[in-house]
Amino acid sequence: MSKISVAVLGATGMIGQRFIQMLEDHPYFEIEGLYASERSQGKRLGDVLKVRDHEYLDDTMDRRIETMDISKIAKNCRIAFSGIPSDLAGPTESQLAEAGVAVFTNAGSHRMDPHVPILIPEVNPDQFEAVKDQPTYNSTGGYIVTNANCSSTGIAAPLKAIDDAFGLKQVFVSTYQALSGAGYPGVPSLDAVGNVVPFISHEEEKMESELAKMLGTYQRGEFEFAKFKVMANCARVPVVDGHLESLVLDMEQQPTLEELERCLVSFRGEPQRLELPSAPVQPIIVRKEDNRPQPVFDAMAGRPVRARGMAVTVGRLRQSNGYYKAFAMSHNTLRGGAGGSVLNAELAKAKGIL
Amino acid sequence: MSKISVAVLGATGMIGQRFIQMLEDHPYFEIEGLYASERSQGKRLGDVLKVRDHEYLDDTMDRRIETMDISKIAKNCRIAFSGIPSDLAGPTESQLAEAGVAVFTNAGSHRMDPHVPILIPEVNPDQFEAVKDQPTYNSTGGYIVTNANCSSTGIAAPLKAIDDAFGLKQVFVSTYQALSGAGYPGVPSLDAVGNVVPFISHEEEKMESELAKMLGTYQRGEFEFAKFKVMANCARVPVVDGHLESLVLDMEQQPTLEELERCLVSFRGEPQRLELPSAPVQPIIVRKEDNRPQPVFDAMAGRPVRARGMAVTVGRLRQSNGYYKAFAMSHNTLRGGAGGSVLNAELAKAKGIL
Amino acid sequence: MSKISVAVLGATGMIGQRFIQMLEDHPYFEIEGLYASERSQGKRLGDVLKVRDHEYLDDTMDRRIETMDISKIAKNCRIAFSGIPSDLAGPTESQLAEAGVAVFTNAGSHRMDPHVPILIPEVNPDQFEAVKDQPTYNSTGGYIVTNANCSSTGIAAPLKAIDDAFGLKQVFVSTYQALSGAGYPGVPSLDAVGNVVPFISHEEEKMESELAKMLGTYQRGEFEFAKFKVMANCARVPVVDGHLESLVLDMEQQPTLEELERCLVSFRGEPQRLELPSAPVQPIIVRKEDNRPQPVFDAMAGRPVRARGMAVTVGRLRQSNGYYKAFAMSHNTLRGGAGGSVLNAELAKAKGIL
Amino acid sequence: MSKISVAVLGATGMIGQRFIQMLEDHPYFEIEGLYASERSQGKRLGDVLKVRDHEYLDDTMDRRIETMDISKIAKNCRIAFSGIPSDLAGPTESQLAEAGVAVFTNAGSHRMDPHVPILIPEVNPDQFEAVKDQPTYNSTGGYIVTNANCSSTGIAAPLKAIDDAFGLKQVFVSTYQALSGAGYPGVPSLDAVGNVVPFISHEEEKMESELAKMLGTYQRGEFEFAKFKVMANCARVPVVDGHLESLVLDMEQQPTLEELERCLVSFRGEPQRLELPSAPVQPIIVRKEDNRPQPVFDAMAGRPVRARGMAVTVGRLRQSNGYYKAFAMSHNTLRGGAGGSVLNAELAKAKGIL
Repeated sequence: MSKISVAVLGATGMIGQRFIQMLEDHPYFEIEGLYASERSQGKRLGDVLKVRDHEYLDDTMDRRIETMDISKIAKNCRIAFSGIPSDLAGPTESQLAEAGVAVFTNAGSHRMDPHVPILIPEVNPDQFEAVKDQPTYNSTGGYIVTNANCSSTGIAAPLKAIDDAFGLKQVFVSTYQALSGAGYPGVPSLDAVGNVVPFISHEEEKMESELAKMLGTYQRGEFEFAKFKVMANCARVPVVDGHLESLVLDMEQQPTLEELERCLVSFRGEPQRLELPSAPVQPIIVRKEDNRPQPVFDAMAGRPVRARGMAVTVGRLRQSNGYYKAFAMSHNTLRGGAGGSVLNAELAKAKGIL
Repeated sequence: MSKISVAVLGATGMIGQRFIQMLEDHPYFEIEGLYASERSQGKRLGDVLKVRDHEYLDDTMDRRIETMDISKIAKNCRIAFSGIPSDLAGPTESQLAEAGVAVFTNAGSHRMDPHVPILIPEVNPDQFEAVKDQPTYNSTGGYIVTNANCSSTGIAAPLKAIDDAFGLKQVFVSTYQALSGAGYPGVPSLDAVGNVVPFISHEEEKMESELAKMLGTYQRGEFEFAKFKVMANCARVPVVDGHLESLVLDMEQQPTLEELERCLVSFRGEPQRLELPSAPVQPIIVRKEDNRPQPVFDAMAGRPVRARGMAVTVGRLRQSNGYYKAFAMSHNTLRGGAGGSVLNAELAKAKGIL
Repeated sequence: MSKISVAVLGATGMIGQRFIQMLEDHPYFEIEGLYASERSQGKRLGDVLKVRDHEYLDDTMDRRIETMDISKIAKNCRIAFSGIPSDLAGPTESQLAEAGVAVFTNAGSHRMDPHVPILIPEVNPDQFEAVKDQPTYNSTGGYIVTNANCSSTGIAAPLKAIDDAFGLKQVFVSTYQALSGAGYPGVPSLDAVGNVVPFISHEEEKMESELAKMLGTYQRGEFEFAKFKVMANCARVPVVDGHLESLVLDMEQQPTLEELERCLVSFRGEPQRLELPSAPVQPIIVRKEDNRPQPVFDAMAGRPVRARGMAVTVGRLRQSNGYYKAFAMSHNTLRGGAGGSVLNAELAKAKGIL
Repeated sequence: MSKISVAVLGATGMIGQRFIQMLEDHPYFEIEGLYASERSQGKRLGDVLKVRDHEYLDDTMDRRIETMDISKIAKNCRIAFSGIPSDLAGPTESQLAEAGVAVFTNAGSHRMDPHVPILIPEVNPDQFEAVKDQPTYNSTGGYIVTNANCSSTGIAAPLKAIDDAFGLKQVFVSTYQALSGAGYPGVPSLDAVGNVVPFISHEEEKMESELAKMLGTYQRGEFEFAKFKVMANCARVPVVDGHLESLVLDMEQQPTLEELERCLVSFRGEPQRLELPSAPVQPIIVRKEDNRPQPVFDAMAGRPVRARGMAVTVGRLRQSNGYYKAFAMSHNTLRGGAGGSVLNAELAKAKGIL
């Protein structure tokens, strides 16, 4: 079987380089070219290195960056993985879809578009159907699928598992978000070292709306949002990779902590049933130690090797005043970024929509 | 007026050194001796330096540490400010009270004792009356007053102001706690650098019970706890000083954000009315910038100079789904530690209980 | 005596804000206006806060930034303290000098100009004479004086003391430089957290030439450079303020370590003799502890209060194979930045060149 | 071929866990047991996790720690890999050697013993002969081989290459050492965050003597030390893994920078010739970028996968005043710790001394 040619957009950035990492030796996909803004044209990938565990990138270090030429990409690639900034992503991704490219993007620009799913294969694989209502889908075969915001992703699967089993009424979430979530150069070091910044532009609004869209349904051409309420407080901490999130959950039923744990540990989704290449065997890991999850130990959770950084880790399950408390964490630029979109494209292939 | 002689217990530690700093040139109190465990006997204060802004300590750097001799302390001092570890604090502080010393302590050992107030002068000055029911009070004149846990302190005044004005029903709080809260050596650097640890032993339980005790009443010889519920998630972040806390508040009334802000900004307590030396003129500061409060900018808030680090800063007031959201921060070893106890002693003097 | 009106250029930046801090309630100088690029016009100083110990800035937080209008500045100010970037500093500072303003600058643009001294009042006060050979000095009364690069400054006084006493032949220096030295936004946090970057553009070349210029002489209209050699390795570490530098010194004489220490401790310069307001009483402090100097404890060394951050701290004096070893540290944006230029202006006033 | 049974001593510590990581699926060696002090007896390895990239340890996470029983270890194991603290290492390792065990240790206790080599297989494989003069070697077959101090290791191979090619006269080195070098709990976070500590006990003395011992010879039963001089300044920086070191070199010859680079890049040693399992194909990597090596990018350098963290990276080759300057870095607990000893044992096997 010949592999599907893919373009990586925004290859000089944090997410773009995670795309390259996730796509190395991929069984379905083959990188055709690395694209970025004109400013970066001709640069070696190795000279714009952002990702710390760059051993994954070693073999492509000498590859050169090209400028984004829509018609060239459309001619050569079935898929574009996009890690470009939101302001640029809006028009560029629309043009690519019109030109027949399947766009799997980390950018937020199209997330609230009427027929664009915010897709997490373990959570809302059925919402993939929405792409068939995108105008370009029937004309050129192009379409747009977004992954969720990195903070929403980190808790979407646990919330889905819990909502299905026990009914979710309210979610109180506070984030401890990693620096890589702001891209590069991102947060100035003078704001980061020894400090916490309790503000991330539009992040709380995104969490409060995206989770409801994802855990809702797509029926008769429209998204119906889930009914539970989300109250989010977001802050940036001096951690490199891995978003930690504290949770207080208000549920319809009152399971024991053991039942709650079992519900999380046994959760499996479409990617696990389909055995997609980047799907973690166990999508939600529950740690029993009293001080986990921690970014430095748990951000890269996920097995097999191709799914490292793709599992969500939950710990410190507790009860208090009728509420449930927990901490959750996930890798913000793998599961919550490039890895999310790669898994979406794997699902597309399995569903025959490529 | 001659000054009151005071002992500082635990002078080699983080809190002990903050006591020394707060007591330098104090108008009421004069340090008689620095005390610590036998291990530290004879050491120069300068050789066991813990507090980073040590210029405050410069004049006492050559002072020597003595071992804790109860009868010597009782003979020479009316007050002991205690920054010793909880396991040691229990018996030592009881012995001092029995020997006639007024103990103002940062340790948690006696916080839930029947007649021991957890005192924050802006919040529950009336609970000071409880000490008169301590057995030692009438026999030797000794008694014990504790300050609150550092995380509880940081939000106690805002919660008090809000409860009085609008009625509190539920408090959802997540903490971003500084390293100095764990004392010295405290958290190993390998756990702290680039990491968050989502566990602080007994901290959540303390927050959930102490706030209710403090915002309750002391009547007929008993503490009656406040009725609102607290759900706490506590985590340690790589910040040196200053606890940040995210809040979601469920209130009986639904004020506008302007009314909420006005309520916080205009809040004044007993220390402000009495113009106590370490009382900040404005105990709750509200920042309007979208990215404050931050530890590096706001931990030391408070005026005049003697009250630096004694104000609480609140920011990012928002509404969401009928709840109110905010971030609050305060200095964990000043307002939430040594400074709290010094202010308690100042209140004792003003009330004539010294 | 009425105060001298001064302009602060680059008021939105790290150095500019240190100028404002050093000039608060200054006995000689009064800030007439805060200036920066057009982009910042009209902004509140409080909204572009960079310096962490901002309590010093509190009283000017509401002051607005103006754009740099050369003729307006020249009309209203005798002095311009400049913290603007080097590329802009070259022409702007020349224009100001031509317009009659005495420019005291932190920028490097004019440091190697023929009659511009790199001035550290303790080290080379006589080189101030060079300004009288600047063309503008006799026409408009304007002139330019630069402070040294922050890394050079940190060791200039100790090297001067040692060169005078024992003769310097070679200096091997490695730097551990703080993030604030790169300005704001400066170093991206993803490069800084948990990392060291062994490269600072042109820093090593500056150290190897500036120290020789400063420790040389100005005679017959020309700078004669000192003869000792400097070999520098420069690196950036995740420290906020305070450059630490390791030293291996090759001297002509072989003093005992006690003699070396005495030479450093007893060193006094022109600012001490003239009792300039920002001069530390003791310009070189020697610490005897085995683990000092450290940025968090020693960066702010210097007394009285106005001279905080203006002393250099030296520690760990050792001998090895005929060489002398030590660590030195100083505050890079106070002594090595804004404070250096303020002290230069104070010397100018004392010398009657204002 | 059946594998050789080995014991890991100090399995709860930083170095012990790196031993376990390096020995996972090792072609020659098989872990028989994990040993530590009595305090840790019976603990799960997973509960005393220290190393951040713990995925390597996953399969042994449930393994239990045993107390160090010399006769049991001697009965079951040919080799003991020791990561125990120096005070304990002295007698324990001697007893093991007497009992017939080949001890490969990271501890410093025996480094200066008369017939104990400080071994780096690329640098001084011939010094392995010294073990044959250890009394136990001929009686029980037991012996002791130490790896070098982590800072010495990081530059030993480059210095060896340069000394052989161009003759070394003097080495001026300053270190930027990682926190993991101090073990766990090691450096308190309050000393590490945003700080540099310019003191590591005995480190400078070790560097100044160990390098000379290693680059010397062992002849007629005695070590003859190399003649070049080392002047070291050592400091601890807030980096997790990877020691960076600045170098100024005084050489007999004056090669061009290209010649110097070629000498380093083409260097190969005994482990490369013997293709030992943990030997990096290229032991010295030279980076051409102007800002490398950096801990976060280069600490794990080394190929193939088993040799990750075993290569030394050198960068920023420069000339200045007749000296050569460079930065070097290596992984302090892999190449400079456990990995060094594993490579030593691999060499022992290849030489038939096991």
